[in-house]
Amino acid sequence: MAANQPLRVTIWNEFVHERNKDAVKTIYPDGIHVALAQSLTRQLGEQVQVRTATLDEPQHGIPDDVLAATDVMLWWGHAAHDRVADERVDAVQQRVLEGMGLIALHSAHASKIFRRLMGTGCMLRWREAGEKERLWITAPGHPITEGLSGEYFELPATEMYGEFFDIPSPEELIFISWFSGGEVFRSGCTFRRGRGKIFYFRPGHETFPIYHDATVQRVIANAVRWAAPSGSPYFGQSRNIEPPLESIQRSHLADPSLHRHG
Amino acid sequence: MAANQPLRVTIWNEFVHERNKDAVKTIYPDGIHVALAQSLTRQLGEQVQVRTATLDEPQHGIPDDVLAATDVMLWWGHAAHDRVADERVDAVQQRVLEGMGLIALHSAHASKIFRRLMGTGCMLRWREAGEKERLWITAPGHPITEGLSGEYFELPATEMYGEFFDIPSPEELIFISWFSGGEVFRSGCTFRRGRGKIFYFRPGHETFPIYHDATVQRVIANAVRWAAPSGSPYFGQSRNIEPPLESIQRSHLADPSLHRHG
Amino acid sequence: MAANQPLRVTIWNEFVHERNKDAVKTIYPDGIHVALAQSLTRQLGEQVQVRTATLDEPQHGIPDDVLAATDVMLWWGHAAHDRVADERVDAVQQRVLEGMGLIALHSAHASKIFRRLMGTGCMLRWREAGEKERLWITAPGHPITEGLSGEYFELPATEMYGEFFDIPSPEELIFISWFSGGEVFRSGCTFRRGRGKIFYFRPGHETFPIYHDATVQRVIANAVRWAAPSGSPYFGQSRNIEPPLESIQRSHLADPSLHRHG
Amino acid sequence: MAANQPLRVTIWNEFVHERNKDAVKTIYPDGIHVALAQSLTRQLGEQVQVRTATLDEPQHGIPDDVLAATDVMLWWGHAAHDRVADERVDAVQQRVLEGMGLIALHSAHASKIFRRLMGTGCMLRWREAGEKERLWITAPGHPITEGLSGEYFELPATEMYGEFFDIPSPEELIFISWFSGGEVFRSGCTFRRGRGKIFYFRPGHETFPIYHDATVQRVIANAVRWAAPSGSPYFGQSRNIEPPLESIQRSHLADPSLHRHG
Repeated sequence: MAANQPLRVTIWNEFVHERNKDAVKTIYPDGIHVALAQSLTRQLGEQVQVRTATLDEPQHGIPDDVLAATDVMLWWGHAAHDRVADERVDAVQQRVLEGMGLIALHSAHASKIFRRLMGTGCMLRWREAGEKERLWITAPGHPITEGLSGEYFELPATEMYGEFFDIPSPEELIFISWFSGGEVFRSGCTFRRGRGKIFYFRPGHETFPIYHDATVQRVIANAVRWAAPSGSPYFGQSRNIEPPLESIQRSHLADPSLHRHG
Repeated sequence: MAANQPLRVTIWNEFVHERNKDAVKTIYPDGIHVALAQSLTRQLGEQVQVRTATLDEPQHGIPDDVLAATDVMLWWGHAAHDRVADERVDAVQQRVLEGMGLIALHSAHASKIFRRLMGTGCMLRWREAGEKERLWITAPGHPITEGLSGEYFELPATEMYGEFFDIPSPEELIFISWFSGGEVFRSGCTFRRGRGKIFYFRPGHETFPIYHDATVQRVIANAVRWAAPSGSPYFGQSRNIEPPLESIQRSHLADPSLHRHG
Repeated sequence: MAANQPLRVTIWNEFVHERNKDAVKTIYPDGIHVALAQSLTRQLGEQVQVRTATLDEPQHGIPDDVLAATDVMLWWGHAAHDRVADERVDAVQQRVLEGMGLIALHSAHASKIFRRLMGTGCMLRWREAGEKERLWITAPGHPITEGLSGEYFELPATEMYGEFFDIPSPEELIFISWFSGGEVFRSGCTFRRGRGKIFYFRPGHETFPIYHDATVQRVIANAVRWAAPSGSPYFGQSRNIEPPLESIQRSHLADPSLHRHG
Repeated sequence: MAANQPLRVTIWNEFVHERNKDAVKTIYPDGIHVALAQSLTRQLGEQVQVRTATLDEPQHGIPDDVLAATDVMLWWGHAAHDRVADERVDAVQQRVLEGMGLIALHSAHASKIFRRLMGTGCMLRWREAGEKERLWITAPGHPITEGLSGEYFELPATEMYGEFFDIPSPEELIFISWFSGGEVFRSGCTFRRGRGKIFYFRPGHETFPIYHDATVQRVIANAVRWAAPSGSPYFGQSRNIEPPLESIQRSHLADPSLHRHG
């Protein structure tokens, strides 16, 4: 990617609770996607080009041409995971394998796309008591922690998520949360799938103003930059390599009668 | 698991090539599953109780009660991945998450169940030239290498599989293969998903007598023992923990108006 | 290892606090090493052959012949890390690389041998308030969690250890601790070095009766069995392989003038 | 790090073979460090500020103030590992933990600093036949592979390094090498230690013009950018956190008689 091209970010939101629950509407009057878009644009300026997409749009707002023009996707879903078409999940998965970054936020742990990419159930313990969460940094020096000055940061009132969190072992564990009520959680986890980078970030919940928190916003902006496509191309297709790259010595070849097909 | 209970092993085979190709029939007259069953039984004796299952049986031979009574499953498929019912794939995945070991052999890299558990495409390069393969051990001391005395072992004539192999980064990389024709491959890879252990093992192909090779047989027997269910229970279900495990101090609770639902 | 040979376990203890502090003497009258030895013997019976070794013995009780006859070593140290001779640290490290398991307990995080094997500082936050610790299982199905029936286990009064814990990313993260006072900690971590397996287990401290706790004892016994030497030999020496394993085609060889030495 | 500050790179070279062997002098007349410096400067321009340091300079050219002013260090050594003062190795290790990137090249596998950071012996198999090496990419999408367009790249004549390579399991495995003579090698490996990033890159050897190869140069330049310090500060010091961050409930505190010291 040329250094002077903006990152093309698509923020996906099911956009359900913000329309049918007053408590949520108060916090995110235009939807979580718009709050996230404003935060990213304010922080990253011309480094990003942000668009949003929602469940009720045709093809959920993410037809193939939008996916093809997306470098990093943020995913928020909670109440309507099942309404996401499998065909679109297939398409997003394929784009991730090809190199698109994916940032799964909070309840997106149970989204079809996150579960698909993990291969596990991705379930967890939870409680909605509005308790304190403290996120400890376990990977100082990781680009996703850029700008965080302490050993931890806090959210005063959150929904609790607790272990056991049924994910594959994260490749990098960035944050572990402590909750007042007695639980812990792997709250910042990276994974690579194909050529794509994935970041799961726990903080959220639509009934708390989590995405108005400056540190949470900073982490998400960091993650967008970290998850940008990079490196060499994706060679994900099956391919027959005949003849061999090297000429194979006769002595290294089996009796051809052994492997003749049909 | 009690020490004196045999491991219950189910060997699954699509059982297609051995019936419709003479070259394969010659090598595995009763099917690859039977060759593997004989090898396991000969090596592990009363430590295992082996059964087989094939595609054409009702529910592919793996109805729920068979899965429930299986500790470790071996999976061979090549020509008929698409004929495996999604509903059975769901069931096998769930059993792996609950603790069943899964050993995916050779062309099972492209099976529905392996791709489901990996979350990636799992494709690779290949060539059927019958060339020499040398498997180097990169994790000495791993139980799966028990009984191997050298730095590597060889197979005189194999189908080549080459990188890029589109899997998540293995948790443990046990073998890397060298091929005469110029390729390398991550040939022995472990993964954990939920409570279950997974081992991918490259050697195979129905047109070579790979599963008659003593070292290959030994590695598979080792893997069966390694993949046996162990440890604490699986808490894979979503669960609300209210009230909190700890009484939460008033100062740690949000204004309840913030998080009232509905 | 033959199935009927007992595991040879050496429990190393600096054995300082138990002799010079009454509070510790009350809890471990014969030393932590003896308490651990009794627990292992009681649990594993004829599966193990346990000996102990302490700092003040000649060569700290671990001369070469003892190391050579040790399959798994437990290490406890707190007040006298600096008094361990570097020459013995070298010898223990070498034995780990060759396949000896090592279980580093609690304050052994700061021991020379653990820091040597990690390559990092291994420091952490701590507090001696006697607060509650809850250890959540993040790797159900791992042999080290065998016999634990719940999602977590608790210790009513412990010294706190908190993040940031300056270790390399663990290969398997088995437990994460929650502390009443507000911290979290990666409390059960596995690592492989050479052919050897390493388990760091946080619970401990000489002023609490942690090693009299049945669950802690169980985890340590599980870890001893998990850390036992296994698999293929260790090829840790540098070695020149000439001539090549394969005859190299002329076209693959450089102009010899390029690489003639001297 | 501010976006407009150049990365401060220090290239360390023992600078022995280039002075006492004609074959090496021909390839690197001013030393490998100068060849690397020219390549980095040509590729990264004002993004970097490059200096070099060699064994024979006072404090090996890397006194504390140079280390403090270094963001990424490259390390080349082969014939004189033992002549590097332990005191300087301590200092470099500490700087890596604090965030300095380290790129260990080829025979630096056996350097004191690399072995210190790994905790293992880091030995390997080798052969100086000038054979072909093919490096396969196993982590497409990793920033270190930026600009590589194929599935692999080749070096026509190299010293062979073969498995078993006695390192901890790499956090990311970027390249696996194939050699004509029959070996494989984990040739591009990343590790994190403390706040610092480490990249081991196999290609090299002083008797082949490896560091004049454009792809090798590109990978090294990519690695310099990847290894730059980033993220949150390093909290590597032991620290007592009293009083607790949270007020601990009376019921969570042990009988103080239990943990009174002295």
